[in-house]
Amino acid sequence: MPMPDRSNSPKPWTEMATTLVDVATGRKKADLVVRNGRWVNVHSGEIIDGTDLAVIGGRFAYCGPDASHAIGQDTQVIDAGGRYLVPGLCDGHMHVESGMVTVTEFSRAVIPHGTTSMFIDPHEIANVLGLPGVRLMHDEALAMPINVHVQMPSCVPSAPGLENAGAVLTVEDVAEAMTWPNIIGLGEVMNFPGVANNDPTMSGEIAATVRAGKTVGGHYASRDLGLPFHGYVAGGPEDDHEGTCVEDAIARVRQGMKAMLRLGSAWYDVATQIKAVTESGLDPRNFILCTDDSHSGTLVQQGHMDRVVRHAIQQGLKPVTAIQMATINTAQHFRLEREIGSIAPGRRADFLIVSDLAGMTVDEVYARGVKLAEQGRLVADIPAYAYPDSAKNTVKLGKHLSAEDFDIAAPKGKNEMRVRVIGVIENQAPTRALEADLPVENGLVAMDRKGDVCQIALVERHRGTGGVTNAFVSGFGYLKDCAMASTVAHDSHHMIVVGTNKSDMALAANRLGEVGGGVVLFSEGKELALVEMPIAGLMSDERAEIVAEKAEKLTKAMSDMGCTLNNAYMQHSLLALVVIPELRISDVGLVDVRTFEKVDLFV
Amino acid sequence: MPMPDRSNSPKPWTEMATTLVDVATGRKKADLVVRNGRWVNVHSGEIIDGTDLAVIGGRFAYCGPDASHAIGQDTQVIDAGGRYLVPGLCDGHMHVESGMVTVTEFSRAVIPHGTTSMFIDPHEIANVLGLPGVRLMHDEALAMPINVHVQMPSCVPSAPGLENAGAVLTVEDVAEAMTWPNIIGLGEVMNFPGVANNDPTMSGEIAATVRAGKTVGGHYASRDLGLPFHGYVAGGPEDDHEGTCVEDAIARVRQGMKAMLRLGSAWYDVATQIKAVTESGLDPRNFILCTDDSHSGTLVQQGHMDRVVRHAIQQGLKPVTAIQMATINTAQHFRLEREIGSIAPGRRADFLIVSDLAGMTVDEVYARGVKLAEQGRLVADIPAYAYPDSAKNTVKLGKHLSAEDFDIAAPKGKNEMRVRVIGVIENQAPTRALEADLPVENGLVAMDRKGDVCQIALVERHRGTGGVTNAFVSGFGYLKDCAMASTVAHDSHHMIVVGTNKSDMALAANRLGEVGGGVVLFSEGKELALVEMPIAGLMSDERAEIVAEKAEKLTKAMSDMGCTLNNAYMQHSLLALVVIPELRISDVGLVDVRTFEKVDLFV
Repeated sequence: MPMPDRSNSPKPWTEMATTLVDVATGRKKADLVVRNGRWVNVHSGEIIDGTDLAVIGGRFAYCGPDASHAIGQDTQVIDAGGRYLVPGLCDGHMHVESGMVTVTEFSRAVIPHGTTSMFIDPHEIANVLGLPGVRLMHDEALAMPINVHVQMPSCVPSAPGLENAGAVLTVEDVAEAMTWPNIIGLGEVMNFPGVANNDPTMSGEIAATVRAGKTVGGHYASRDLGLPFHGYVAGGPEDDHEGTCVEDAIARVRQGMKAMLRLGSAWYDVATQIKAVTESGLDPRNFILCTDDSHSGTLVQQGHMDRVVRHAIQQGLKPVTAIQMATINTAQHFRLEREIGSIAPGRRADFLIVSDLAGMTVDEVYARGVKLAEQGRLVADIPAYAYPDSAKNTVKLGKHLSAEDFDIAAPKGKNEMRVRVIGVIENQAPTRALEADLPVENGLVAMDRKGDVCQIALVERHRGTGGVTNAFVSGFGYLKDCAMASTVAHDSHHMIVVGTNKSDMALAANRLGEVGGGVVLFSEGKELALVEMPIAGLMSDERAEIVAEKAEKLTKAMSDMGCTLNNAYMQHSLLALVVIPELRISDVGLVDVRTFEKVDLFV
Repeated sequence: MPMPDRSNSPKPWTEMATTLVDVATGRKKADLVVRNGRWVNVHSGEIIDGTDLAVIGGRFAYCGPDASHAIGQDTQVIDAGGRYLVPGLCDGHMHVESGMVTVTEFSRAVIPHGTTSMFIDPHEIANVLGLPGVRLMHDEALAMPINVHVQMPSCVPSAPGLENAGAVLTVEDVAEAMTWPNIIGLGEVMNFPGVANNDPTMSGEIAATVRAGKTVGGHYASRDLGLPFHGYVAGGPEDDHEGTCVEDAIARVRQGMKAMLRLGSAWYDVATQIKAVTESGLDPRNFILCTDDSHSGTLVQQGHMDRVVRHAIQQGLKPVTAIQMATINTAQHFRLEREIGSIAPGRRADFLIVSDLAGMTVDEVYARGVKLAEQGRLVADIPAYAYPDSAKNTVKLGKHLSAEDFDIAAPKGKNEMRVRVIGVIENQAPTRALEADLPVENGLVAMDRKGDVCQIALVERHRGTGGVTNAFVSGFGYLKDCAMASTVAHDSHHMIVVGTNKSDMALAANRLGEVGGGVVLFSEGKELALVEMPIAGLMSDERAEIVAEKAEKLTKAMSDMGCTLNNAYMQHSLLALVVIPELRISDVGLVDVRTFEKVDLFV
């Protein structure tokens, strides 16, 4: 594969050291000097008035009082006017794909909010395109004017044997990825029972990561803090963002893990867990803020890490403590404390000029000494990143679907069938394993529109097998004839179609086949809304604002059809997540995730 | 060179992970379970009652309530009886040679005081034996039952051009050492003007260390916190233990360095600098405790890191905060936080059972799960380490010295000469550049016994050149005919002889030639005291208690001769330290360290 353009990345400190020393001591002049700022010092925990910063070659050379000695004829001088100088913010764990945009468009969206470093786990594209997909995002990440570090996805597929994803990642793949220039560690090890049970793929991947000197990300999504939790910790994961209550945060920190507290579009885990610091008095150094999953709409309307830091301050943290959790704590965790996460000599000159610290009002954003955003607007040119065709033709249906593909035949002679139904729970990822008695019409099991039981289908889309798994779902509340299809279908990312009408289901599925994936809503043969996501069927190559608008239109259309669930689209896209109880659909059938067993549709 | 025995070192966490997981979850049984302790948790900053620890293969597998599930028939079970479980203490920077004993004997002396990790800079042996000397201590360190990590000495010789040490270490030597298994980083970069002036040896060594992913130790021994300090920081050193006042500590932490606070035998830099935390409120995470230099007597009579932690607590730190500064902070700084520095799963099972936390009363000491000490006594067998003959024949005088070798001839026809005199300052490392008018007798410049001006000689001892540099010194207060010789003569470690009588000077010098180095005091032809240090002329191979006794006898004998200086022996051994002002002696002559120039004896 071709190496990406890294021209905007500063040279290593070691190569620049003599220049940095020359600027620090006044023998050479800086590229940029910022005068008269209030230094938010995440090392000492102080805020220091009257601070100047001198920058050369993208790194800080001098941070202290009066940098006159570093100013020459060609030095750009900025007056901070007594405003705060804050290290660029870091998102400790997140998935770009959740924004439905590319790394480039995600970066464009979050830079004005002060994010200059992201630790991204391209778990979704890995499920579609495997290692080459990870490499694509890795390379795109390297081309960014901010620091986008990639965590190698650890669990692809998420549930071996219960689904066939688009790819399988092995211990060897992990070991190979660890040699790439921009892999920072292993992505969230979500097969937590596997770790506690010494699954060789899990222990092998963790060992390969540790041997490479990199950080092992965790994901312990269970309330059980007993022996399975202790087994998971002993296996080696170093952080966890799945905690939801204060006990979770305390347990993780006591065991030497970093508690990652997330505020995403649908995750609200900071306020509860930060009490470990504000009420229980734990040392804040082991807490890291992150978003995990942000929709484009959240980025456009509410922000990114500025929002998380602001929220943490509102829970009662000192501003500098909250900022540490989004800067130096994150950097240290990923062994990057000499590179990012603070305003200090030698580090990358990633900093924000902030006018209101508690409110995190980000006036200007600099990365590597270059101004990227001002007053909430991007001022730098960040060219679109071209994905190859191989990443754009991933929706392989194998045939043109028709309404009949969604027929559910009853056994001969039956007038009614008792079936399993996936029950959506509003605002929660788990589902309920329901049952319903449905009438048989013309030999086919029919939906119960009045009872809010409609059809769901998982359409195989990685290998073009033409396979369709049909079942029933309840909870969307669709009142009209309609169908929604999505190729975002965690974690295997086949296509999920939910509909009250089989013709619309076929139309929706075929439409996504045409545009290379995304989300589409049909009603009575008419397309009501479409968000195209041609890259792996997961990401648009349009701007976040445009994607957010289209997504908004989709939400509106779902609502018009009668669906008033919060985050209805997310609920739709999680129905194939065969690692979270209770009942899910996959390309191999219905799966009872309480027992991790395939079950029949008919009871 | 033969690889040392590493049999007592635990296997890497990655290799042991499945076993650790099995013990944590109860599928396998532990080697050792400690019950009912109060867990001093340096991650969370808490003290947690009712904690059990399960250990296997030298690592913690489980830390939490009730480890019954890890107890089998062959498990050793210890009841902590509600006492504190404290991580083994780390000394962040120190020189074993200052104890005048080997790494083995130093370890034997400090283990009962709770030290289970040391970061040692074998700077002194490097000046005598070069890279092979570093390797000898590196290999001895690896054989210890505690963690002794070696920092590669960075400045050998300390003052190129102003002295000829026994060896020269180059950038290539540093790069080679970085490939050794037990090198943890670069030792204190004491050529601080060199860093700020981009001396290629300094920048080359720092770059080689950073490229190897290891920690660069600092040593900025100047009160100037202006541009030279900022230049030094920009050059890359990551810590500094040379601060003496609170402003020093604050400046270092603000710049992203770790402030190492030392309490050695003659260093008292904790109480002043810890005010940065206790009064100025700086974040304590960037503070590390160390000893730098401990004499055997201090170890035997006062302790080691237990003494430093106790002292830090007495300055007003919370016990857990002080302990963090001697455990997890140190471990993080050296990128070892997943290996040592806390009681947490996966880490080496280095821990103390402490009955009084604020008083740091160490009842029992475990390293790698093995009990090494109890109630202040070593209970483990730590065999003596045999140094090769090449390390024991380093005092090469090239001839038998006689009184005439110490003659200082006056220019013909002179009755009196004005000479430069090194003036000792009690309790300080710097000296004064004095002058005196001395009588000429029989063509030789005579001492002024009444005016406390006696002779000093630097005897070349690395290459057997027979070279003797003669000069005068004032401040020892010797009233009787006597001479003291030492092959510990920082940093080049030639032999320094100070005497009121030239015959005794010759006897003392020759005696050290016979025994392979050390310190000896003669008076009127009689040997009053001798501390043999056959290893590189720097270290005894006897027990610290015995060395401390001999050193005590030497001090007593110096006192009997009229010398009542505090730390008189240390003052003697620092007179060739040509990096600290004002006047020093070296094998190339007298050196004025204010200007870094060689000067004549005669004014």
